[in-house]
Amino acid sequence: MAVRVVIVGQGLVATHFAVGLERIKAGELEPYGVPLARYKLPYRIEDLEIVGSYDVDEEKVGRSVYEVARRLVGDILPVPETLKEIVVRRGIHLGSMVGLPFKVKGLEEELGSTKAAIERLVDEFKEMRPDVVINAATTEPARAFNSVDALLEAIERDDRDRLSASHAYAYAAYLYAKETGRKVVFVNVIPSPLARDDAIVALYEKAASLVLGDDGATGATPLTADLLEHMAERNRYVLSIAQFNIGGNTDFLALTVPERNKMKEETKSSVVKDILGYDAPHYIKPTGYLEPLGDKKFVSMHIWWKTFNGLEDELVVNMRINDSPALAGLLVDLARIGKALLDRDVKGTAYPVNAFFMKDPGPRGSRNKARIRAYYDMLQYLRELGVIEES
Amino acid sequence: MAVRVVIVGQGLVATHFAVGLERIKAGELEPYGVPLARYKLPYRIEDLEIVGSYDVDEEKVGRSVYEVARRLVGDILPVPETLKEIVVRRGIHLGSMVGLPFKVKGLEEELGSTKAAIERLVDEFKEMRPDVVINAATTEPARAFNSVDALLEAIERDDRDRLSASHAYAYAAYLYAKETGRKVVFVNVIPSPLARDDAIVALYEKAASLVLGDDGATGATPLTADLLEHMAERNRYVLSIAQFNIGGNTDFLALTVPERNKMKEETKSSVVKDILGYDAPHYIKPTGYLEPLGDKKFVSMHIWWKTFNGLEDELVVNMRINDSPALAGLLVDLARIGKALLDRDVKGTAYPVNAFFMKDPGPRGSRNKARIRAYYDMLQYLRELGVIEES
Amino acid sequence: MAVRVVIVGQGLVATHFAVGLERIKAGELEPYGVPLARYKLPYRIEDLEIVGSYDVDEEKVGRSVYEVARRLVGDILPVPETLKEIVVRRGIHLGSMVGLPFKVKGLEEELGSTKAAIERLVDEFKEMRPDVVINAATTEPARAFNSVDALLEAIERDDRDRLSASHAYAYAAYLYAKETGRKVVFVNVIPSPLARDDAIVALYEKAASLVLGDDGATGATPLTADLLEHMAERNRYVLSIAQFNIGGNTDFLALTVPERNKMKEETKSSVVKDILGYDAPHYIKPTGYLEPLGDKKFVSMHIWWKTFNGLEDELVVNMRINDSPALAGLLVDLARIGKALLDRDVKGTAYPVNAFFMKDPGPRGSRNKARIRAYYDMLQYLRELGVIEES
Amino acid sequence: MAVRVVIVGQGLVATHFAVGLERIKAGELEPYGVPLARYKLPYRIEDLEIVGSYDVDEEKVGRSVYEVARRLVGDILPVPETLKEIVVRRGIHLGSMVGLPFKVKGLEEELGSTKAAIERLVDEFKEMRPDVVINAATTEPARAFNSVDALLEAIERDDRDRLSASHAYAYAAYLYAKETGRKVVFVNVIPSPLARDDAIVALYEKAASLVLGDDGATGATPLTADLLEHMAERNRYVLSIAQFNIGGNTDFLALTVPERNKMKEETKSSVVKDILGYDAPHYIKPTGYLEPLGDKKFVSMHIWWKTFNGLEDELVVNMRINDSPALAGLLVDLARIGKALLDRDVKGTAYPVNAFFMKDPGPRGSRNKARIRAYYDMLQYLRELGVIEES
Repeated sequence: MAVRVVIVGQGLVATHFAVGLERIKAGELEPYGVPLARYKLPYRIEDLEIVGSYDVDEEKVGRSVYEVARRLVGDILPVPETLKEIVVRRGIHLGSMVGLPFKVKGLEEELGSTKAAIERLVDEFKEMRPDVVINAATTEPARAFNSVDALLEAIERDDRDRLSASHAYAYAAYLYAKETGRKVVFVNVIPSPLARDDAIVALYEKAASLVLGDDGATGATPLTADLLEHMAERNRYVLSIAQFNIGGNTDFLALTVPERNKMKEETKSSVVKDILGYDAPHYIKPTGYLEPLGDKKFVSMHIWWKTFNGLEDELVVNMRINDSPALAGLLVDLARIGKALLDRDVKGTAYPVNAFFMKDPGPRGSRNKARIRAYYDMLQYLRELGVIEES
Repeated sequence: MAVRVVIVGQGLVATHFAVGLERIKAGELEPYGVPLARYKLPYRIEDLEIVGSYDVDEEKVGRSVYEVARRLVGDILPVPETLKEIVVRRGIHLGSMVGLPFKVKGLEEELGSTKAAIERLVDEFKEMRPDVVINAATTEPARAFNSVDALLEAIERDDRDRLSASHAYAYAAYLYAKETGRKVVFVNVIPSPLARDDAIVALYEKAASLVLGDDGATGATPLTADLLEHMAERNRYVLSIAQFNIGGNTDFLALTVPERNKMKEETKSSVVKDILGYDAPHYIKPTGYLEPLGDKKFVSMHIWWKTFNGLEDELVVNMRINDSPALAGLLVDLARIGKALLDRDVKGTAYPVNAFFMKDPGPRGSRNKARIRAYYDMLQYLRELGVIEES
Repeated sequence: MAVRVVIVGQGLVATHFAVGLERIKAGELEPYGVPLARYKLPYRIEDLEIVGSYDVDEEKVGRSVYEVARRLVGDILPVPETLKEIVVRRGIHLGSMVGLPFKVKGLEEELGSTKAAIERLVDEFKEMRPDVVINAATTEPARAFNSVDALLEAIERDDRDRLSASHAYAYAAYLYAKETGRKVVFVNVIPSPLARDDAIVALYEKAASLVLGDDGATGATPLTADLLEHMAERNRYVLSIAQFNIGGNTDFLALTVPERNKMKEETKSSVVKDILGYDAPHYIKPTGYLEPLGDKKFVSMHIWWKTFNGLEDELVVNMRINDSPALAGLLVDLARIGKALLDRDVKGTAYPVNAFFMKDPGPRGSRNKARIRAYYDMLQYLRELGVIEES
Repeated sequence: MAVRVVIVGQGLVATHFAVGLERIKAGELEPYGVPLARYKLPYRIEDLEIVGSYDVDEEKVGRSVYEVARRLVGDILPVPETLKEIVVRRGIHLGSMVGLPFKVKGLEEELGSTKAAIERLVDEFKEMRPDVVINAATTEPARAFNSVDALLEAIERDDRDRLSASHAYAYAAYLYAKETGRKVVFVNVIPSPLARDDAIVALYEKAASLVLGDDGATGATPLTADLLEHMAERNRYVLSIAQFNIGGNTDFLALTVPERNKMKEETKSSVVKDILGYDAPHYIKPTGYLEPLGDKKFVSMHIWWKTFNGLEDELVVNMRINDSPALAGLLVDLARIGKALLDRDVKGTAYPVNAFFMKDPGPRGSRNKARIRAYYDMLQYLRELGVIEES
């Protein structure tokens, strides 16, 4: 019983997802980094099948995922031959790569309007019949619409400044679901607000579909959340938090552009007040780009607090984390869980799932919570729905 | 409605407890480091009243807690005058300080037998009428009896090698409870197995009393537990864990004696398998004594793991932690919760409380779990018993 | 034999200098952090005498250094009463504090022109008769002139955009030296290029005076220099260097203004190529402002390299450093050495001294070198000049 | 002009040395980690030729270095076929591997006496004609003799408790030099005192030969030396130093045996007083064995100090270091330098070389100094002797 997956943005995350998935299927890789690998879900990892891929980079469009993977991770990983069958299609750009050193061209440029591009996507989706569309594109500037009318109007007007590529893809997937009656899960692991956009959630609800998001929680932020919960539970008074991130992948390069950085800073900072209950002074943001670090970012964090008797304690965390594989591992479960939720008629969005997997969980206005709490709350939610079967 | 507390071991932990408590009562200190300070419990922090103190150090016996506190923490904290009223009494030694550079003498030496010493304690307890006895002595070698007969026999035979001071105090408190009908909570925050000793738990159950323990969870171990849970929830495969601890207080000095170190190593290591589900190779133990660090220990931890696609990530944690205040803050809640549990007829031991507060939670054979899980499980347990009142 | 010192910029550095100096004179403080305290110099620390202070902050002008010190460091240090005698005078602003949340007013605003302000300074200097003028103002945007004519013209035209306050002070001190025949040392420990400005060095040479600078080397940069030298000496191939700095003092606040940050980044980055011999990719700059950290900044550094057989090693350094006292300690020696060099007819600037004490040593075009090398080279230089007497 | 090298102890260090050397010769590896690779020495790296190898491990004796290397580093490095020609010979044991989980047998056991074993070595050396003998065996308990007579007597009496394998090898190399008139360099990179043993130095002087040692300085100790020098030059008062080391190679396994650990602790601790000028409290020793870390050890270091105005600063260093390649890189230069010194009639030992390359530099009673100083002092020494040619 296959779960058909289309990927948007054939960068490092999507490539690690594709390579890892095929290696697991081939029995040559343990599913480390896949959170629920030890539980019995309705869909096995082996059930996932990548049926399509989109990008706007001229170096990728028209190439197979195999070729892209060889170039991106061929030096550190074996790339399965099965990926030769998936060809990267031209997707929507809408300025999402502006300012980055890549030659890009979007469907909307080719076809003359965003609306035409969306229609093309819908046609292609009808042919590929995805159950899951995963948005793993590069961080882009984007704002929520919160009103369906406003969203539709922006598309109608072809307002390329207001519209983000993420919104266009999400809208295309919605149309596909509505027109075919095939439910779809849109998994958004970048900061663009989709699961936090009332408009998108309303549309997906109407199509008995599901949007999960936003901004996949890997690396430093979920760890910070758990560390702050650790402090809060002991009533330690956090004096300040500094968190630096530096890496050499496209996402870090993108974040040297100030407005993208801001996108990230917001999703990262919300954990502090949500978990501690007060807005401890903090500096939490992607800090810089340093090419040789590649995808294995360096993170440094400093937290200090008042303990009993007013004395001060101090904690420093340093990490080297493979950025993209961490997120790719989450995608394996997000796709499986998403499809299982659709089967159980869950629609709109699913906060208990978002709360564990996402930095900024939808729907709009939702609180961040410590990941460890979110994990157990999610397990219970999935058990109640029968998504996790007790062994 | 006072909660009457007797302290065993007037070292840094007990002194921080006494000083911090009096400062909170005087309104000059926020209760940071007291985990449940934000919840409404049946007993307020202000209800705690220290009515007695024991030690075997000739430098302390006969002096007031004020004098002891001035010497131990007078350079970094104001010492409340109210502590002048509590005089340190001579307690039981049973070799617990052997090998350390202190001049000590136990009641059993003064009175000729351990049994006589225990009887003296019972008499004094009858006079002081404690609700709570807190054991915060220096780490000592100790083994569980698990059989009440074996324990009684060791006392009868005055077997000073087999008996630990902790057991003697716990037994004295039990006798006091049984003979007076006043229930008592024995809070054991050192590694000696009491809440994990079937014999002690059985006796306390008989006296409608409660033993909470063992080994208060502060500093590196609970943080390690939460970090490992963080890994486990993402199915990251932990390759190894190294954790170093070095400090300059009496406890670190004590741990330079190998058999004491072993006591600590065991309570620290059990977290790994309990939380990860496999026994990842680890080196977790107090590493050394370095006098200038004083009570503010230095901790360094290295954890690395396999993530998705078999790649390796790495985490290093460094801390400077005030060892004793962290534990003292827990005592504030342990005393209040313990008394509230007694009021609700809880007896023997209380795993949900131990699981959060202790490194090696009783009863015998209990699992360690991530502190964040333990915290919420404890909150629920306390809510169901009405110990935490919903606001 | 007093060495008379005037301070420019009565901020944290100058205040630590003043407080520490008076405490050392009073015999209540060991001269830790004063590099050459263990050597016998022609002037003892006790010979230093602060005779004047300048600032443009309305909160400071007209107050005594004692009052300023009570406010800035009174919570952590005893402030000597002797500082009551030094009153902060109004200095030159020239936009050096623009964009910072302080109410400021410069002499040039009061007197109508920069030239008039400089003349006022010269008059005051003639009255105070300094041997040493120390520039410890907040980091400001500034560019070298390199031509005496261009500098004079900028003053003449009152070109407040082109002129920096640092240049105005340095010029005033030069005029004072020239007009009185009293030699002067201008010690510049901020990034403004003075010892690297050919114009300033030429003027000082003409007045038989000395400018030492630029940008006092404390904290992370000199340590980085020594770490890189450590790598270079083992022919380890450095793959990249990341260095983060975050703090809560005025200097960090100032560096949130991009053009100031750039001033700092340049002086910090030059170490890499100068020491390694190749420009290893690096990210080295003040990263952020976090108020609770105060003057004790947090530094995190990541360096990795190829070792023998092409394998990779990795180093992470984390620090908590009191920013201002570190620099204040250097001032003690810079003032003493500077005066001793004047006595020995050294003029212009003195590279061997700058190379150890400064992040960006003058004269223009000078190389950075590992501090440990610079230290021994400086010792030899000072020995040859008889500034260090062999014991 | 070949430099003929015999290796004692075909463990990880010797194997990295052999593999790296052949890869450099084959032009497939840059000589990173070879300190003087950038200088022109009388012997090029390519001139080094390994002509023999000794071990006592039954798994190695009789096998080729190629086979040993495949097993030890074959998973991370390509192993050159040229190593098939060197066969590991049986060497002297003298208890050096007692307590470790290896099946070993020494020549002295095979031949009946240590003297016979030494004679066998001398015969083999005569056949292999080494210029350099490198001792890279596992850390063993060993004590200096300091008297030639005492050494000779121990050999004569076959006193296997008193004699170390290192002494036996060094003595054999001496006899070979004396009997053939071929000078030899004995390079000792393990803690056994040879260059610090007056007896060994005297014998080598007599044979116009050279012993360099002891205990190759890689990893944490030379870095600590440079960090302490950094503190000393700023007159910072170091309050304490903690340094932890943990790894998974044979050397760390060996150091779980207390008396071996002691060997290491001594060579590591001597840096503190030598560099700071006072014995700052410290804990510096190999801390534990953790198998998965393999040869890439984890090091954590904590240093804090008093800075100006009596305030306290703090530094933490964490490293992951490939232990054996670092030492192997030094061997490349030690062999080349050693031979060049022989050519220039240097004999006995050479402190300026030892001071940079060794943790505990001979001759007996020599001071440790900061590596950066030692480096420049060595350069000057080598320049004066013409070993480094100016380019």
